Amino acid sequence: MVKQERALRTREALIKSAATVFDRDGFSVASLTAISSLAGVSNGALHFHFASKAALADAVEEAAAERLAHIVTVHEEEAANALQLLVNTSHELARRLTADVVLRAGFELSRDQVREGGPGLYQQWHRWVEGALKRAAGEGVLNQVKPEDAATSVVAATTGFEVLGPQDPEWLSHRTITRFWRLLLPRLADPSVLGDLVAAGSRPHVRP
Amino acid sequence: MVKQERALRTREALIKSAATVFDRDGFSVASLTAISSLAGVSNGALHFHFASKAALADAVEEAAAERLAHIVTVHEEEAANALQLLVNTSHELARRLTADVVLRAGFELSRDQVREGGPGLYQQWHRWVEGALKRAAGEGVLNQVKPEDAATSVVAATTGFEVLGPQDPEWLSHRTITRFWRLLLPRLADPSVLGDLVAAGSRPHVRP
Repeated sequence: MVKQERALRTREALIKSAATVFDRDGFSVASLTAISSLAGVSNGALHFHFASKAALADAVEEAAAERLAHIVTVHEEEAANALQLLVNTSHELARRLTADVVLRAGFELSRDQVREGGPGLYQQWHRWVEGALKRAAGEGVLNQVKPEDAATSVVAATTGFEVLGPQDPEWLSHRTITRFWRLLLPRLADPSVLGDLVAAGSRPHVRP
Repeated sequence: MVKQERALRTREALIKSAATVFDRDGFSVASLTAISSLAGVSNGALHFHFASKAALADAVEEAAAERLAHIVTVHEEEAANALQLLVNTSHELARRLTADVVLRAGFELSRDQVREGGPGLYQQWHRWVEGALKRAAGEGVLNQVKPEDAATSVVAATTGFEVLGPQDPEWLSHRTITRFWRLLLPRLADPSVLGDLVAAGSRPHVRP
């Protein structure tokens, strides 16, 4: 059991190191030696866990997909409606993209044209955003806009924040995401709920 | 003169080939041999024009910056106001990103974290978008929103369309950009001009 636990920890460390090196150097250039050395394990140990760099990238993308799945469920019960849930979740995603290299590298790998596609984090995010907006429509809190159209614009904008963030952290800041929702909510929300919606997120803003 | 002209053509061919290979393989992996071979010139001819792969990437980014500068001026006189100009120009940018590999590769290079920054196409686009929205405010066609906030959201969304386009062309389609503006214009435009604004673009839509 102790041995299994250690193997699991080594695997986690390798995934985090791989994410760090992919994020810094890009998938194509990233060297396995740099990854194993950052994880503090031998090349042999790396190869015991992952057959290839592609296998490591798949593992990073899968770990990121799990984190994204967690992010979109963690606020479920706090929000008054599905539109506020979408706002809160986008703030959480931006925070985590800044703080969590595995999540960030997962998105970067998902749009690497050179790699064969993994689980597709953008599609996963898109499906969830569209689902949230459809729920908002069902709750009667969405204005006269199609959930699909709103989802396209929200996903495009959040993708832009994610892509531009590494060069200039302001793009992923709480302030920028809040401004985005201040602009968009009056168009998305039914007038009856607009006053109750909080563009800055409806839970205490705790930076990790 | 004939010799100079031929040299200029070779340079142009190399820039286009480099853009094609960067776009396909990524900057880090792209090989100079693949680039010269695609341009139909020798490795020696490539090195006569460009000292390194980095120099070629700079040239691609500069060529893309020139194209972007052209795109944002070409519709200047057709639009009734600066908000319609922004709509038309974003449609034109999406069309060109689909059709012109040099423009596309220029944006990709601009967000390559591994490279040292060139002219920064995103900043160039951001400045122009913000300028257009400020002009719209001056013309009295902008609603009660800050031009800077609107610019942030528009740039984030267009960046998302650009980044997601290569994997799924629907993101850069005329339909998607039109839907985006149908969503956003009622929020951005002063009610007095909203009815005159054309989300699909106010000039005949001609695909290149």
